Amino acid sequence: MLRSHSKLVLLTPGPTPLHDEAVSALALPMLGHMDAEVLNLNAEIQADLRVMYGAPNAFTALLSGTGSLGMEAGFANLVEAGDDVLVLVNGTFGARMAEMAARYGANVRVVTAPSGEAIDPDDVARHLGRARMVALVHGETSTGVLNPLPDIARIVREKSDALLCVDAVTTVGMGPFDMEGLGIDYAYTGSQKCLSAPPGVAPVAISPRALARFDARRTPTPLWYCDFGGLRDYWEKRSYHHTVPVNLHFALHAALRAALREGLYARAARARDVGFAVLSALQPAGFTPFVPTEAARLPTVLALRLPPGLDDAAVRAELRRRGMSVTGGLGDTAGLIWRLGLMGESARPHLYRPFLATLEDLLGERDLVRRFDAALSLQVAAD
Amino acid sequence: MLRSHSKLVLLTPGPTPLHDEAVSALALPMLGHMDAEVLNLNAEIQADLRVMYGAPNAFTALLSGTGSLGMEAGFANLVEAGDDVLVLVNGTFGARMAEMAARYGANVRVVTAPSGEAIDPDDVARHLGRARMVALVHGETSTGVLNPLPDIARIVREKSDALLCVDAVTTVGMGPFDMEGLGIDYAYTGSQKCLSAPPGVAPVAISPRALARFDARRTPTPLWYCDFGGLRDYWEKRSYHHTVPVNLHFALHAALRAALREGLYARAARARDVGFAVLSALQPAGFTPFVPTEAARLPTVLALRLPPGLDDAAVRAELRRRGMSVTGGLGDTAGLIWRLGLMGESARPHLYRPFLATLEDLLGERDLVRRFDAALSLQVAAD
Repeated sequence: MLRSHSKLVLLTPGPTPLHDEAVSALALPMLGHMDAEVLNLNAEIQADLRVMYGAPNAFTALLSGTGSLGMEAGFANLVEAGDDVLVLVNGTFGARMAEMAARYGANVRVVTAPSGEAIDPDDVARHLGRARMVALVHGETSTGVLNPLPDIARIVREKSDALLCVDAVTTVGMGPFDMEGLGIDYAYTGSQKCLSAPPGVAPVAISPRALARFDARRTPTPLWYCDFGGLRDYWEKRSYHHTVPVNLHFALHAALRAALREGLYARAARARDVGFAVLSALQPAGFTPFVPTEAARLPTVLALRLPPGLDDAAVRAELRRRGMSVTGGLGDTAGLIWRLGLMGESARPHLYRPFLATLEDLLGERDLVRRFDAALSLQVAAD
Repeated sequence: MLRSHSKLVLLTPGPTPLHDEAVSALALPMLGHMDAEVLNLNAEIQADLRVMYGAPNAFTALLSGTGSLGMEAGFANLVEAGDDVLVLVNGTFGARMAEMAARYGANVRVVTAPSGEAIDPDDVARHLGRARMVALVHGETSTGVLNPLPDIARIVREKSDALLCVDAVTTVGMGPFDMEGLGIDYAYTGSQKCLSAPPGVAPVAISPRALARFDARRTPTPLWYCDFGGLRDYWEKRSYHHTVPVNLHFALHAALRAALREGLYARAARARDVGFAVLSALQPAGFTPFVPTEAARLPTVLALRLPPGLDDAAVRAELRRRGMSVTGGLGDTAGLIWRLGLMGESARPHLYRPFLATLEDLLGERDLVRRFDAALSLQVAAD
């Protein structure tokens, strides 16, 4: 009857290892989605999400699906046929945004940057035109690039009344996020990324301006399941819309509380410190940052170009056999890079030490662990 | 830090109490959505779903959302603007189908029946016309009505080439289901209903004919998240589409295995026996079946009209205080009825006995439990 089930060290860019308190909460007794206790828990989640997003006036909620549904809900609710939408594309997830916007009838224009490079804010200024929405990925999981969100947001806010829609999947929750200060209108993430909760819910934040745009729609959104009106029915008016995944609400609530208790600045420092130590360990062994410009490196996903001659598939298969899950490239970076997760519970030295020890064995390297520990103690001393 | 959390007896029409094996599986160690072990588990889920749906040639999968997303995915993928769609409406969920079909651009026509009555197959025959799709809810959770699916399916298959789309949320998994024999093209349910797994995934089955209709679309579906092509990428080609809620896959896998092990006929008998016993206990106390025609009563949701003078809100609030969750009506049945769940783990005497004992106390009734046990032993003797 019992199926074998591996226990792996997850070094992937999501899902991240679950937070202990999320695991405990997942096993709490089942309750109905309309029970007052669940509705009260939802209200606490909403308040905590406003803190996480830095958006005291936003409407916050969990969508009953993963991060891609968060992406989709933005376009489904805030785009109407013929709308001019500018999408900034420098990786798989930016390209997905352009695809979704087009499916909802937008007239999509794109600003691109080469793989591994950040979007240039000047390009955004040049192409802004009469866009009704500008959409971008803050941290591109597919390449490990951090786009300059504050600069882009300033341009959009100063020069247009476009809605600003941000994929915060690899950023929010692992550092301070200033949705209201930057004038962002819609932001989303997935529970299994920076919060280390199980996948299956997408925390979103919607600005009052975005809600006004939604309210002024000429036609209903096709996407009934994530209709902003339906979300408000459930999350504000406490009336039934659809059954929500309550066990995942329990777990997200616990993980989010734990994240805010630790502090968003402390979490940013943790990702930075562990990332610096991993890079310090691996760079002398021939791994090089895929993103050349240091300022454009995403602190939560370390993308490393593999040393010449390293057999990506074979080494990762052997790591998997030894209980460690490492993710390669995606799209045009497949076979070229590894993407190491530094979100939530994956930004922990005790995960990376055995990984580096195993690599010493597999690659015939020495001193990976020693360099890791030395860099880590340097960082901790500097903090 | 610890939040208080009630442990309730769930007598609701979903979510149902979790199956023990689903609870254990939910806590299994986290794995990535692209890990070979998860992909193999998915293949087992697909095979088991083909058995559950009685559809050896269907494409089966889990959608990463709850039952309403299952409903939405059917219309999103199988309807194009201007399609003639006939929706059979005799409750909240049939009405939701009509709403969704319209949002995806269908030319919606409806056949209705009064609340508490089943759809008349002759009405379907009369209105079939040139429908490209006929959509109906098998068991209307909102009223406890079982629609005559075999008769309706026969008419649709004999007289048209319309796709037949069936909401099997309260039926499949709690009894045999003959998707292929009846010529059904798309069917869906929610994990938290007859299977007693946690909510958050929607098991779906898609016929080869429905896939051919999808492949012949003139335009892509707006709904990227549930695009049938994307589903096949992940579930057949094992390539990345979106992050799936793996912990819920673990739990669904365990609950589905347990259901098939028990046997679909045995489960149908269990729902029928417990339902008969609850009705036997409550009918002499003035509760009457909301659905007058016995053949139209859904075995998995017992809808009972309340005795005159019973204060719905007050009694349910007191039951809740004593640890029992009971659901009232929905839409035009609010305040008039209770809807008692008999799906999966809710069709258990040990759940209903304390409920009936408490009702004896609250309503000043006698013999509810005695009548329940007597009816139950009669049924078991007859099996």
